Amino acid sequence: MYQAPLADVLTTLTHMVGADALAQTDLYNEASPDTVEALIGEAGRVCSEVIAPLNRVSDLEGARLENGVVRLPSGFKGAYDQIAEGGWVGMSGSVEHGGLGMPITVMSAVNEMLSSACLSLSLVPILSQGAIEALEKHGTPEQQERYLPKLMSGEWNGTMNLTEPNAGSDVGALRTRAEPNGDGSYAITGGKIWITWGDSEAVSNVVHLVLARLPGAPEGTRGISLFLVPKYLLDANGEPGTPNALKVVSLDHKMGIHGSPTCVMAYEGATGWLIGEENKGMACMFTMMNNARLAVGLQGVGAAEAAYQHALSFAKERVQGRTPVGDGNGPIADHADVRRMLLSMKAQTQAARAIAYDCAYHLDLARAANTAEEREAASRMGAFLTPITKAFGTDTGIEVANLGIQTHGGMGFIEETGAAQYLRDVRITAIYEGTNGIQAMDLVGRKLSVDGGETARAYLSRIAQTAARLQAGAQTQAIGNALAAAVETARSATDWMLNAAGNDRNAGAVAYLRLLALVGGTHYLGRAALATGDPARIELARFWAETQLPNVPALLSQASNGASGLYQIPLEAL
Amino acid sequence: MYQAPLADVLTTLTHMVGADALAQTDLYNEASPDTVEALIGEAGRVCSEVIAPLNRVSDLEGARLENGVVRLPSGFKGAYDQIAEGGWVGMSGSVEHGGLGMPITVMSAVNEMLSSACLSLSLVPILSQGAIEALEKHGTPEQQERYLPKLMSGEWNGTMNLTEPNAGSDVGALRTRAEPNGDGSYAITGGKIWITWGDSEAVSNVVHLVLARLPGAPEGTRGISLFLVPKYLLDANGEPGTPNALKVVSLDHKMGIHGSPTCVMAYEGATGWLIGEENKGMACMFTMMNNARLAVGLQGVGAAEAAYQHALSFAKERVQGRTPVGDGNGPIADHADVRRMLLSMKAQTQAARAIAYDCAYHLDLARAANTAEEREAASRMGAFLTPITKAFGTDTGIEVANLGIQTHGGMGFIEETGAAQYLRDVRITAIYEGTNGIQAMDLVGRKLSVDGGETARAYLSRIAQTAARLQAGAQTQAIGNALAAAVETARSATDWMLNAAGNDRNAGAVAYLRLLALVGGTHYLGRAALATGDPARIELARFWAETQLPNVPALLSQASNGASGLYQIPLEAL
Repeated sequence: MYQAPLADVLTTLTHMVGADALAQTDLYNEASPDTVEALIGEAGRVCSEVIAPLNRVSDLEGARLENGVVRLPSGFKGAYDQIAEGGWVGMSGSVEHGGLGMPITVMSAVNEMLSSACLSLSLVPILSQGAIEALEKHGTPEQQERYLPKLMSGEWNGTMNLTEPNAGSDVGALRTRAEPNGDGSYAITGGKIWITWGDSEAVSNVVHLVLARLPGAPEGTRGISLFLVPKYLLDANGEPGTPNALKVVSLDHKMGIHGSPTCVMAYEGATGWLIGEENKGMACMFTMMNNARLAVGLQGVGAAEAAYQHALSFAKERVQGRTPVGDGNGPIADHADVRRMLLSMKAQTQAARAIAYDCAYHLDLARAANTAEEREAASRMGAFLTPITKAFGTDTGIEVANLGIQTHGGMGFIEETGAAQYLRDVRITAIYEGTNGIQAMDLVGRKLSVDGGETARAYLSRIAQTAARLQAGAQTQAIGNALAAAVETARSATDWMLNAAGNDRNAGAVAYLRLLALVGGTHYLGRAALATGDPARIELARFWAETQLPNVPALLSQASNGASGLYQIPLEAL
Repeated sequence: MYQAPLADVLTTLTHMVGADALAQTDLYNEASPDTVEALIGEAGRVCSEVIAPLNRVSDLEGARLENGVVRLPSGFKGAYDQIAEGGWVGMSGSVEHGGLGMPITVMSAVNEMLSSACLSLSLVPILSQGAIEALEKHGTPEQQERYLPKLMSGEWNGTMNLTEPNAGSDVGALRTRAEPNGDGSYAITGGKIWITWGDSEAVSNVVHLVLARLPGAPEGTRGISLFLVPKYLLDANGEPGTPNALKVVSLDHKMGIHGSPTCVMAYEGATGWLIGEENKGMACMFTMMNNARLAVGLQGVGAAEAAYQHALSFAKERVQGRTPVGDGNGPIADHADVRRMLLSMKAQTQAARAIAYDCAYHLDLARAANTAEEREAASRMGAFLTPITKAFGTDTGIEVANLGIQTHGGMGFIEETGAAQYLRDVRITAIYEGTNGIQAMDLVGRKLSVDGGETARAYLSRIAQTAARLQAGAQTQAIGNALAAAVETARSATDWMLNAAGNDRNAGAVAYLRLLALVGGTHYLGRAALATGDPARIELARFWAETQLPNVPALLSQASNGASGLYQIPLEAL
């Protein structure tokens, strides 16, 4: 059973990322290392003891739609109440509206642990946090006052309503309409699909954030506005009153995350209110979405951690054949190929975690740093690391869960074992909130070029500094040498991307993103090795460098092939 | 819906592998290209039209144990009857006992198509074929006469009973007992798990091949014998008579292949007969197992082909956003990253298919070649290619099915779409019949060193010849150059493996196997390009070389790291 990896989480925050520095800022001066450790420790305890035991129940029972009401797996309501009572939904929300005012970094650590414990349930706070941030940034004071406290307390939950059958990755194609009612509200009409936690019996109201088009709005993404559409309209006391004209039509049958209701929603002239400006819905949506992309990357990390622990526990107990070390009677973890899989799982999980926490840290600095210049630079770094966090975190979740099944041998394919569920559950994370291909295109098309490559070069310079420090240590010299060479390769890849045409960039985007993640991963594992001097951390960094950095030249090659080779075979000949 | 890829299958046989040469041998002189094409065409038609439509039914209904009888998904019985009537169970069995006497190569093509259509159902003929080969090689004439015709006709099916709860990869740990009854038969007592198609309503008898220990047998694999244990004892007419003392205790709940009953079996003094010599059961088992490993590799290829077709069909129809080519209104297949996934799926599938067919071809030559020397060399080449076929074929199945889900975006996670099932089903193929880690160890520990590397070097020399031919063509020169360099890297890796200590080999085995598969894959795709001059085949070989061969140096590095780095972190610190 999952045990919250508190030591790894804190080492990542302190030594890989340096997030303790946040306590020195005015904004986060209450986030002292002691406070952070206490918060994470308590959240970890609930995740391990209360939520993780529900994970298999979530898979077996699933969410069900009964007479228009979404019923949840046994125990979900009680577990969700503990999440809410812990203050974890509004963990980084403003104190003014009932949040804890903690850094996003700390919230991210909690989100990771929730995701390890139960991916289905972790989606409730994650989506509410997206709605909270959208309302904090774009809502009117009245909207904030009426909705934020209940969202932060977890009494209500938030959703993102983007997708329609013909508008998935192409959000601009959506057709849901918003007609002014003449009283400041709008009548929202249309169908939405894949609405995560679109309804449930765990909360007393649902705050839908819905993308729709105003009459006469321009085509495409420039004609989309964001609306707040509650399940129940609020009465004079701000409590849920009259049911709104919306409903859950059906739930999808999915490969995994069965406990998370994925709703087909119908809005039938439902009453909603504009959030932000007319036709600026995409900007509001990206506020939610960037938040959610970080959180989804952490879902991948959380699934990876849980799958790793699960496989490690099996590999330490299962005995098969003579082992090549010790007295030969050890468990299968002593077989070279099993040990290789375990180390690979551990190293990948730690690298993905560090990238995600570093992303969160820069989003915090973007709020809390002293100067506008520092805040701007941090904001760009956070934005740059967001697609890497999302894609590499979720790819890692899938890869580690897959290795976890393999470590179990035949038992891995038997559902009772639990290993298969991690893969079935985490598989969606590489798709939702923008597929990993979309993330890679966001990286090379927007995040990389928005400042002419300055942020990317700054990131690589930080890594080069770590390489130099590693090179200076007797035990870490080889890691440093390999990393220094990899940074140069990453610089070449970055230069190539900055000079390439749009579709050439897109053709190599996935490889380029992975290249940065592998180089970045060495940096974080190396920093932990340097800071702690812990032999196990030095060896993990060495293992990572030996097994992952050799892939970097191949990724440069794949990143810089260009697009033309992809179109030489006509589509009809595929 | 799956369409049998007849053109690709025939091109692979003829141009990548050169299997038409078999018709020149005495043994296979009836396997003329026309006959082969007709057989494969008919099998492909049944797979596409009759079996593939059952694949989702198989997943939804699954096999069920009702009052001791295994009930099958709707339509399975009728579909299986068509497989049997086509002669495909006994396709490569001896004509003397009712088989078609066709090459294993042709049977492999049929097995691949069956696997594309329905992985669950494909297991019946695959396991029967293993039993047939074991009886042909090791059975007494009486055993052959009584059991082979019914197995070949498909009236009965065969199973492999190896695994016990504490004896999985370590077969030598098994505890099932065989006590002589004094009349030439034995009483078999013990429990077996993961017995694929251990019972069903589709057949009138089940021929269990069961590994067990004789009284006083040596410990480990040297004390294991193989027994034939029918579900029903045969009466004087050779028809199923008295029920034997064995039963299905339960069926496992699995991640996939729900239509395939995976049985927990209890043998309670069941009557069985020795196959082969006492305590030589492992040799007999490996006869079954090598056959099954080729077939399982082809399950991976089949799943990959089906998942590719499924994703391609979606990507050709689904429209999202402006595309970067043509008039910009194309389907998502025109987006660079989607096109990259499709090409990657296609190329990997073709490479894995060619390796598997080449493995089968050498197993055929091992029977049919003119001289003992040629037969011996072919036998070793077939044995060498078997673990590569199994591991790379099934890794390809998983990777392509995973890309298939990704190509579908959110639809890929919805079970109704069917993309998820391919991944859930194919996931087991990397585990059963020896995990892919075991395959890699078999390659470096046995197949590579049995002749001091002679077979490996011969394989690489064949590839080097293809490289030279590619280098000589204007359009294929770059592919040839890349392949020539990759062959040298493969030679270095092979030399390293031959000189390394056992556990150092094991530590790098998975990487080494993949390295050989990537280099081999280029050889086959290159041969098709050279032989046909088809621009699409030249481009596919070029795409493969550009995207896969850059991984070869990384794989050399990973293959030759040695084992010691894996054990630097103590197990308790993981």
